[in-house]
Amino acid sequence: MHAIGIDIGGTKVAGALVSVTGDILRLERRPTPAGDPGAIVDVVVELVRELADGQDIVAAGVAAAGFIDAEQSTVYYAPNINWRSEPLRERLAARLPGLDITIDNDANAAGWAEYRFGAGRGTSDMTMLTIGTGVGGAIVTDGRLLRGGFGTAGEIGHLRVVPGGLPCGCGQKGCIEQYGSGRALLRFAGEIADAGGIGQSLARDRDLNGGVLDGHLVAALIADADPGALAALRELGDWLGQACASIGAVLDPQVFVFGGGVAMAGDLLLDPVRASFRSHLPARGFHPEPEFVAAQFVNDAGVVGAADLARIHAGGTAAG
Amino acid sequence: MHAIGIDIGGTKVAGALVSVTGDILRLERRPTPAGDPGAIVDVVVELVRELADGQDIVAAGVAAAGFIDAEQSTVYYAPNINWRSEPLRERLAARLPGLDITIDNDANAAGWAEYRFGAGRGTSDMTMLTIGTGVGGAIVTDGRLLRGGFGTAGEIGHLRVVPGGLPCGCGQKGCIEQYGSGRALLRFAGEIADAGGIGQSLARDRDLNGGVLDGHLVAALIADADPGALAALRELGDWLGQACASIGAVLDPQVFVFGGGVAMAGDLLLDPVRASFRSHLPARGFHPEPEFVAAQFVNDAGVVGAADLARIHAGGTAAG
Repeated sequence: MHAIGIDIGGTKVAGALVSVTGDILRLERRPTPAGDPGAIVDVVVELVRELADGQDIVAAGVAAAGFIDAEQSTVYYAPNINWRSEPLRERLAARLPGLDITIDNDANAAGWAEYRFGAGRGTSDMTMLTIGTGVGGAIVTDGRLLRGGFGTAGEIGHLRVVPGGLPCGCGQKGCIEQYGSGRALLRFAGEIADAGGIGQSLARDRDLNGGVLDGHLVAALIADADPGALAALRELGDWLGQACASIGAVLDPQVFVFGGGVAMAGDLLLDPVRASFRSHLPARGFHPEPEFVAAQFVNDAGVVGAADLARIHAGGTAAG
Repeated sequence: MHAIGIDIGGTKVAGALVSVTGDILRLERRPTPAGDPGAIVDVVVELVRELADGQDIVAAGVAAAGFIDAEQSTVYYAPNINWRSEPLRERLAARLPGLDITIDNDANAAGWAEYRFGAGRGTSDMTMLTIGTGVGGAIVTDGRLLRGGFGTAGEIGHLRVVPGGLPCGCGQKGCIEQYGSGRALLRFAGEIADAGGIGQSLARDRDLNGGVLDGHLVAALIADADPGALAALRELGDWLGQACASIGAVLDPQVFVFGGGVAMAGDLLLDPVRASFRSHLPARGFHPEPEFVAAQFVNDAGVVGAADLARIHAGGTAAG
């Protein structure tokens, strides 16, 4: 029996009809009516009705950026959508009777898709880091998504790596998000460009781009094996490996999965992560060590994970 | 039906007959035959036979300091006992036929006892820190003990709080164990004694004790509300609160339980932990916050937790 997954992003709302094996049978996208929470609910309802039409649907899962409560029903806070203590499940259930509806954090939904159908398949304990503009996280322990006591677990981007370090959007200082994100990569690349030497190509492309180093420029130089861009990526990987060593001591995953745009660099990022992890791992040599792999989903992990989590919540078999 | 819990400590092996409600019906202790792994197995077998005599026993759980594999059968490494890849369950099962035997890390067993019958009762997500000579940890998520993919989860003492910080016994630098343990408390107290001012009583007692500040002296001054000793405890609590803020972002527990000798200081330790946690918590105000409480078990948490985990492994009801 199929399930529906919805992923409310900052610019688009994606909806998919997803099979029990994680395959997307139908995919729809709508622009996010930003700044209008009521209109977003309308779009979600419309997408669910459209995708459910003529299908035997067991459940619908909705993923959104923000803090969701442990009962998967209320959005405490969603920065993109201006929701505060929004009873989203209730609101949707009133308009979609007969459907089991659950809400999940978008990073958790994407991580669950990797765990069930992607790079984490076959393990029991997976930690995923999503390296985009920021650093997102999702944790699976003993085959279950770790939501935490209040629903806000997995905020790995806000693990502190430097006391009194760089200020973070969360109000704190020194979070790994400031040292291991796409934004940090651009900062490192800018510093290398300023220093001359191996930073020459970075400096040249920055000048040609009106003084701005963006992700496309750095990604292109990484693809060209430019020494300056690779050095910036190594610096990023070094910080991420340090964070993974702390996470490893606490969570002991079998696998760390790296997703998000920056992780498309594959082993160019993961090799420095692995080396840094090994040199920072507590009690190294006295216990087994995890693997580091790139995510398998490129897009659509959010809708697939949200659908699967909703199916499991509705009592469908997790094993398919 | 009762279960047996065994806790192999550095100096004593404790064994208990434990009821389904966590009550100790009988307790035995033997000296640990240190340096003789075979003799330790003999002591465990002897204790189990004695405690099982005339009883209808479902299972026996053995707790030991060290890394235990995820199958709860092999000790990867136990620093006190000189075990390396020791197939402890198999060895015990051969001599105790008909009994379901499991092995667990001692901090995990103690944390499980707090979760089931002590300070964590009634929650689903608990993180326990044991503040003794070092910093131990145990994590319960969604009602289950977090063992991790390889069995070594919960090593909270080796979360790094200071890059390039103080060297740790684990081979790394800057672990919270170096800033939040009983040993760190003595270091802070010594620094305060050296500085004069509020450190006068600490300096005096240290002189009277042949130049050594030990845990008894500092605990006595804390009990007397000595300003220098309380300042050392506040410094400890401040570091622990910072570590809990990072742990909170990742695990989102409903409650942090503090056990171990230093936590006997109660709110004198917990109030600084709470204050520091609040000032370091990412995205404060956008999600609920955990409580901080002292452990309820004084001794014997290890045997009670080991027995209960063994009972659950054997298929007995977790709810009693």
